[in-house]
Amino acid sequence: MSYRVACVGAGVIGRSWAVRFALGGAEVTIHDSAPGIADQVLRLVEQALATFERAGAISSAAEVMRRVRFEPVFGQAVADIDYVQESVREDVGGKRAVFEQLNAALPPQALAGSSTSTIAGSEFMLGLPASPRFIVAHPINPPHVLPLVELCPTPATAEDTYARTERLMTDVGQVPIRVSAEVRGFVLNRLQNAVIGEALHLVSEGVCTPADVDKCLKYGLALRWSFLGPFETGHLNSDGGYRKYMADYGGVIHATARDLKVDYRASDETIAAIDAYCRESLPAGSIGDLQAWRDDVLLRLGLFLGATVPNRVAPDSEARTA
Amino acid sequence: MSYRVACVGAGVIGRSWAVRFALGGAEVTIHDSAPGIADQVLRLVEQALATFERAGAISSAAEVMRRVRFEPVFGQAVADIDYVQESVREDVGGKRAVFEQLNAALPPQALAGSSTSTIAGSEFMLGLPASPRFIVAHPINPPHVLPLVELCPTPATAEDTYARTERLMTDVGQVPIRVSAEVRGFVLNRLQNAVIGEALHLVSEGVCTPADVDKCLKYGLALRWSFLGPFETGHLNSDGGYRKYMADYGGVIHATARDLKVDYRASDETIAAIDAYCRESLPAGSIGDLQAWRDDVLLRLGLFLGATVPNRVAPDSEARTA
Repeated sequence: MSYRVACVGAGVIGRSWAVRFALGGAEVTIHDSAPGIADQVLRLVEQALATFERAGAISSAAEVMRRVRFEPVFGQAVADIDYVQESVREDVGGKRAVFEQLNAALPPQALAGSSTSTIAGSEFMLGLPASPRFIVAHPINPPHVLPLVELCPTPATAEDTYARTERLMTDVGQVPIRVSAEVRGFVLNRLQNAVIGEALHLVSEGVCTPADVDKCLKYGLALRWSFLGPFETGHLNSDGGYRKYMADYGGVIHATARDLKVDYRASDETIAAIDAYCRESLPAGSIGDLQAWRDDVLLRLGLFLGATVPNRVAPDSEARTA
Repeated sequence: MSYRVACVGAGVIGRSWAVRFALGGAEVTIHDSAPGIADQVLRLVEQALATFERAGAISSAAEVMRRVRFEPVFGQAVADIDYVQESVREDVGGKRAVFEQLNAALPPQALAGSSTSTIAGSEFMLGLPASPRFIVAHPINPPHVLPLVELCPTPATAEDTYARTERLMTDVGQVPIRVSAEVRGFVLNRLQNAVIGEALHLVSEGVCTPADVDKCLKYGLALRWSFLGPFETGHLNSDGGYRKYMADYGGVIHATARDLKVDYRASDETIAAIDAYCRESLPAGSIGDLQAWRDDVLLRLGLFLGATVPNRVAPDSEARTA
């Protein structure tokens, strides 16, 4: 297979998607309606690919880059393609406008996924002839080094659209999951916000500091969760597996869960204190520098886990496209 | 510094603590009241140390093993030591009995920490002359490869006990945090149960499968959280840092958090389905084999992150004790 993919919207998420699709062997066209940004966008994509070359994940960034182009005319960008990934600003009107344009311009078999994280697909994908070919494909930032993608059909999405998008995402190296109801935050952000909400509660109530919360994940929970999910972790925390684990600890887990306040609203002072902590805790550098550093560590971490954990997806595209 | 540490209780957690203390340069005495288990306990400690040698974290497991002994007589085990780590069964009567014995037998300057995870220290540490020298030191399983440890003083714990325990834990390679109130689940299990609770809710309601939950962590959230905490992650998800992140997304985070049901009680059928998923999802092998595999991956992951992320604690004891 060799997919032809268009990325509509060339912000942080759109560019990261372009890198991922190109690494996965696709021909990628990037489109953005902002004028005069083509060179900058392509340079940033090139820089991201260079980190893969430096990490040894690919042999030639230049070779992958030959599959990426920028197209300023929307109709040209989405002509003759298999799939569009929409990543415009998180605004229902703007997203509706893009999907109306896609409805008019998409080739008959092509599909379109949206990177929306806070707006349900039903709010901007319905009522169009092409609605059965539209689906939410919500990534975690940044998708070129974080493979999880949430596929959430609207009530109008065809089952075939889900199946083909799932296959495409798998083929380019992502790990798709199916979100079967349009719940707020889909799955990933619900799990994330459960942690953030309780963390804000604990810090606000003076139970621990912001640094302590981050340490709990960095030196504890997330080390296990990076290769064992929460369910697998419980399974291995009992000599009798998950059923025994819940028989022994289910009562305590439930009692603790009832004591949480995940919907806690932190004060401006607490948020300012967390901001100050982050600036002190992270390595020196601008936020842009640190984002590049984060992406580089994520890439190396993915390669490490891919080489260490059986059957693990790794951000090494050449093994797949060879 | 060279600490003399006693580990009271030689189950999974107690043995893992013994490995950690020995790796950290301490002289370790293991005590357990069960008869005839000395050889087995020491063999399991030796096996754990061998994984460190195989991973290149230490040059000689045998050399570290020379610092470990088993002592069947309680009074002998805790004589002439600096610190006791209690890891007996999670039962308030049993723990009270140990701390009463410690009250009578501890050397005058020695401290004692409890591995309790579900019982507050106040329920078994108070009302004794030695109460000021008792503190909760709750690990995450298994502590020899997961450095986070929660230090939670009781109202009777002396500030000096906290400070000395914090220093000891840091010196042997752990990452201590301070839990300033005896809240249910301390900090780590509150954050963990927030995820588990919402995960049980989503699976029970058919929003996603157990596999999808685990993938969300393994291929998404936990990769970031393994070296950036939830607060640092938010900081780098905004070009303006944490304050800007919360100004932009705080409303959505709060709205999502209000929609969670972390205190959801899963049915027996759901728990059986999760158990079946875990057995299929994990590599082949008995739960014991898989626990050994988990610990080996955790060790290598800690070494990888220690070598990759600035100022990171790594499970490499020789750098510290040299």
